[in-house]
Amino acid sequence: MEKHIVTLPGDGIGPEIMQSAEAVLKAVGEKFSHQFTTESHAIGGNAIDQFNDPLPEQTIEACEAADAILLGAVGGPKWAGGQLRPEQGLLKIRKHFNLFANLRPVTIFNSLESSSPLKQSIVHGSDLMIVRELTSGLYFGQPSERRDGGQSVVDTLTYTRGEIERIVRKAFDTASVRRKHLTSVDKANVLESSRMWREIVNEISTEYPDVTVEHELVDAAAMKLITNPSYFDVIVTENLFGDILSDEASVITGSLGVLPSASINDKGLGLFEPIHGSAPDIANENKANPIGMILSAAMMLRYSFGMNEESAAIEKAVEEVLAAGYKTSDLNIENGTNLTTTEMTEKIISSL
Amino acid sequence: MEKHIVTLPGDGIGPEIMQSAEAVLKAVGEKFSHQFTTESHAIGGNAIDQFNDPLPEQTIEACEAADAILLGAVGGPKWAGGQLRPEQGLLKIRKHFNLFANLRPVTIFNSLESSSPLKQSIVHGSDLMIVRELTSGLYFGQPSERRDGGQSVVDTLTYTRGEIERIVRKAFDTASVRRKHLTSVDKANVLESSRMWREIVNEISTEYPDVTVEHELVDAAAMKLITNPSYFDVIVTENLFGDILSDEASVITGSLGVLPSASINDKGLGLFEPIHGSAPDIANENKANPIGMILSAAMMLRYSFGMNEESAAIEKAVEEVLAAGYKTSDLNIENGTNLTTTEMTEKIISSL
Ligand SMILES: CC(C)[C@H](C(=O)O)[C@@H](O)C(=O)O
Ligand SMILES: CC(C)[C@H](C(=O)O)[C@@H](O)C(=O)O
Repeated sequence: MEKHIVTLPGDGIGPEIMQSAEAVLKAVGEKFSHQFTTESHAIGGNAIDQFNDPLPEQTIEACEAADAILLGAVGGPKWAGGQLRPEQGLLKIRKHFNLFANLRPVTIFNSLESSSPLKQSIVHGSDLMIVRELTSGLYFGQPSERRDGGQSVVDTLTYTRGEIERIVRKAFDTASVRRKHLTSVDKANVLESSRMWREIVNEISTEYPDVTVEHELVDAAAMKLITNPSYFDVIVTENLFGDILSDEASVITGSLGVLPSASINDKGLGLFEPIHGSAPDIANENKANPIGMILSAAMMLRYSFGMNEESAAIEKAVEEVLAAGYKTSDLNIENGTNLTTTEMTEKIISSL
Repeated sequence: MEKHIVTLPGDGIGPEIMQSAEAVLKAVGEKFSHQFTTESHAIGGNAIDQFNDPLPEQTIEACEAADAILLGAVGGPKWAGGQLRPEQGLLKIRKHFNLFANLRPVTIFNSLESSSPLKQSIVHGSDLMIVRELTSGLYFGQPSERRDGGQSVVDTLTYTRGEIERIVRKAFDTASVRRKHLTSVDKANVLESSRMWREIVNEISTEYPDVTVEHELVDAAAMKLITNPSYFDVIVTENLFGDILSDEASVITGSLGVLPSASINDKGLGLFEPIHGSAPDIANENKANPIGMILSAAMMLRYSFGMNEESAAIEKAVEEVLAAGYKTSDLNIENGTNLTTTEMTEKIISSL
């Protein structure tokens, strides 16, 4: 197959890890006879510097013509105080392309289990997927403004039935091909939007008789992710709850640097990015962990191109390299061997 | 001193643990020559059963005449499906008495440290206080309704400047008498209300030059509470973030059953309750852990009556009893001695 990918390296370590992903894709292309073409564009802080816009028009146009988008990371102290902020680029690209379904797998690699802040007995066997709604709710609801001459402020949490239905369906579909256990997280004892969410989950559950569904309040879910993470298979929740819970869940792995994510729309377009930030403190030192970015490229192959075998090959290579004790400096493996970004990338490629 | 306390035992184990708190208060009264009178009223599920109202008018009137309020716990599966829900009583009493400041101490007792889901090296030394805004934000903002004939839904997050100022001042005051380190948690990269919150925190910080203040995004805070809980001293945040983070923080202690809370207004009236639920599965079995309720009574002595010595006496007694290995069945102490609710209460009283 031929696929055209727009890469958005972004800020900090973004460009370095993007090179790693491109190198892995090239190797996968050769092995499986695909042609991946890439085209790089600006987003975030560097786009503010170059174009005075965190998401320039030419970036949007390029993404519109792409089969998939890979993103490194955006942000940094350089742009923290300004009117234009790097994250605005992220929020805008999600909204523009209607990337409503954010998939956040939380996987514990055997060799990294001991670096979890949780006791090994608790974290062992955890393998969950958070399905977060990404283009509505409090993040985008209007009004969002000061009132009464600055004496009060309002933000708005809105959902349409259609917005809830499509993310809930995506979550049921995801659970169907996993362990068939879906936990819907809301705050139905307080919020009207959560009560509607819960009703819709119950309605749609009749279409998926083989998936067990249950409802959990967001405060209870925040506790259970720590006390019993292996309880969960798929979690579905609205935008803000998903922001908090997916970050909370990710740290129990003890290895933020290896976790990928996908944000997809209903036309099959997806944006794939590691969950970690731009880590400006270690930028350009060839120290960054490229695995989160490489596994994001693997998610792209699976979710956007349907290349399951190719995706699994990358995941297996990463697992082997970690199991052999190879690591980057952010990871904790007893008696492990420390590698640079480029060395780690080469190790993964040679394990393919 | 003479103090009049309204007790609201509530549902499930509520009545049992309230008896424990009353017994401890009686003992403290004798020891320190105070007279505590109590008067019991209905709230939650039992109030729905008796009065068809989760917060009956006579309960409100009694609370209006009280020096402080002690609450056991509300809720249970019996009332889960109904129109009237036990939690409505809780939300209504908070709003009616303007109990805007929810103080949630997260303390790790030495003897319970090993029951934390976190590694001992991470949880050791943690001692933090979450100051949660309790009477505004998404919980109470209007509109909160279905729209377009049920095709969409809206909830509203509102704050007035005054509402933010008073909770932020309370947090600075709290930090002033602790380790002088305040972390304000918001989502200022997305929400206008968070940007206003952050501005007000910065304004008020000039009144507290000896308190170090910093801002943390809610997703980052949810991570740090797991990876580095001892980093925090006082956390201040809005209602919904506080709901999620305070429950998340409480489980790292490994002993939900011992944690108290206070909800206070600006006239000095306070409502004090353990953070655990009504545990209907073990109700009436004399198995419930009374310590969260007893320490809530201790918070009442300190925050509502200014009885610091009396409060400290209870806290010290609890610590001694736990250090001696006495426990209830929910607690995990190696080679500990299991006690019933009444036995635990007596042990604490005899340690006073
Ligand atoms: C940068 C920020 C706006 C963003 C969010 O809150 O969605 C980030 O935290 C994320 O989860 O991707
Ligand atoms: C019962 C519920 C409405 C309540 C809340 O969300 O405030 C509870 O979770 C709490 O934290 O006291």
